[in-house]
Amino acid sequence: MIVALSGGIGGAKLALGLAQLLPPEELLVVANTGDDFEHLGLAISPDIDTLTYTLAGLDNPELGWGRRDESWACMETLAALGGPDWFRLGDRDLALHLLRTARLRAGETLSAVTDDIRRRLGIGARILPMSDDPVRTRIGTDTGWLDFQDWFVGRRAGPAVRAIDFAGAGKARPLPAVLAALAARPRAVVICPSNPFISIEPILALPGMREAIQASGAPVIAVSPIIAGQAVKGPTAKIFAELGTPPTAAAVAARYGGLLHGFVMEEGDEAAGIAPRVFRAATLMRSLEDKVSLARAVLAAAEALR
Amino acid sequence: MIVALSGGIGGAKLALGLAQLLPPEELLVVANTGDDFEHLGLAISPDIDTLTYTLAGLDNPELGWGRRDESWACMETLAALGGPDWFRLGDRDLALHLLRTARLRAGETLSAVTDDIRRRLGIGARILPMSDDPVRTRIGTDTGWLDFQDWFVGRRAGPAVRAIDFAGAGKARPLPAVLAALAARPRAVVICPSNPFISIEPILALPGMREAIQASGAPVIAVSPIIAGQAVKGPTAKIFAELGTPPTAAAVAARYGGLLHGFVMEEGDEAAGIAPRVFRAATLMRSLEDKVSLARAVLAAAEALR
Repeated sequence: MIVALSGGIGGAKLALGLAQLLPPEELLVVANTGDDFEHLGLAISPDIDTLTYTLAGLDNPELGWGRRDESWACMETLAALGGPDWFRLGDRDLALHLLRTARLRAGETLSAVTDDIRRRLGIGARILPMSDDPVRTRIGTDTGWLDFQDWFVGRRAGPAVRAIDFAGAGKARPLPAVLAALAARPRAVVICPSNPFISIEPILALPGMREAIQASGAPVIAVSPIIAGQAVKGPTAKIFAELGTPPTAAAVAARYGGLLHGFVMEEGDEAAGIAPRVFRAATLMRSLEDKVSLARAVLAAAEALR
Repeated sequence: MIVALSGGIGGAKLALGLAQLLPPEELLVVANTGDDFEHLGLAISPDIDTLTYTLAGLDNPELGWGRRDESWACMETLAALGGPDWFRLGDRDLALHLLRTARLRAGETLSAVTDDIRRRLGIGARILPMSDDPVRTRIGTDTGWLDFQDWFVGRRAGPAVRAIDFAGAGKARPLPAVLAALAARPRAVVICPSNPFISIEPILALPGMREAIQASGAPVIAVSPIIAGQAVKGPTAKIFAELGTPPTAAAVAARYGGLLHGFVMEEGDEAAGIAPRVFRAATLMRSLEDKVSLARAVLAAAEALR
């Protein structure tokens, strides 16, 4: 079993690569839920959905989020009625949100709903939230704390980040199925090339999660989301800089501290000072071939570290 | 001021006719909310919406409900995900439902949200719910009680009606703005050609509503929804028959008892035994001209009864 910790788009790309190589029962993708929020009465889980749509082949390559072949009649009408349209939900994407919200209200857990939806979309690998308890990432800025989506989507990640908080993480329980997978001697724990600050650290902030990863005995391998000082997508490099560290692969490795045994990073990038064993790979994932190739490199690193 | 009590499609047609003849500030349409329900976490008010879409010129003439130029991407996707699709909500219609639901959850009243939406859609006449308190029509059948939409849409109004109950009506307060309009000496109270059992009687069942209508001093005029023993649309004739009364215009007038001063009915129909004064008109409303013509007949009846 490979246990992969993931945020949205970058993590989903590697997860798709891993899903091409592994039998479905040997891949568990653990999704960050710190980005989750309630909007228009809907329970929104961006990273779960990006993973689900990507593994189902339904992701929207133009947007980088949401569903393929999407239409926007509802959002257009909502805007015409004076409703909030800053967080865009396509007509097809809305169906998933309505269904999830109704089932959560009826008492089902986020993990049960997530698991059912991925099955219905024909995904073999498991996708599970890091916890069924709410965790909400908040961004500290010069003008105060902002809810994550307000900062990320509402303000296009503009205000400089001074601090990050995971509200609720202190009393959220890691999902039992994730702990069980970690306890069952996985082949590796893979930290996907996601934003360390806002995609991976909420997962690691859950009480007992770091300990469970360390106790698993599995090699822990992170893939750098930084290539040549740039993030492929999203505000990773910006957050590093605003928190006072130049955005480098080495800075990513340093964020995970003693947790890592292996670190997969781009060929030409500077590896000086990286404590875990370094594996070189082509980490930019454009094509499916790129994703499979990086996944193969990650599995090879896991093999080398056993 | 004309105060019109209305259900969905038939009532909305007459309301549209009245809106063509009256200055906007002289028409108040009071919508039945007994058909309202929660579905997929959304607050659904079918009669308010039919009135709103009809008066805004956005009604869907093919379906007889919902919005014009509608698309169904969300519902199709919901069905594919195994979600409930028996109550169909179009992509554009969903926007109104999301907005209303979010605003109700944020503490606004149904009347405030309804009033704001009709303004945004450019409707001059007022459309208000009969009450801001929930009333839920339930249908007694041979196999037990059913929620109204479960009976009406879910079972296509199939199970024979043995009894009808308006849950919550006993403690729901008539909308203060409606009581105020009735207290301000309206020119007439018009009971639209809606289903008496399920569209008009929930309004009349509110404590104090009948009394307020009677105390208004205005002529009360009903328009028959039955023409030649048939309902133009919906289960009106079926319910009459199942409750043991042949569906006739006279039976409609009898349902409203002593409340009526005038009764507008189709030319050739039998008027024997009808207590209020009978006015003959063409009551089938196909074209806008038909609607305006019937509205003119109703206003003439009001004039005659003053």
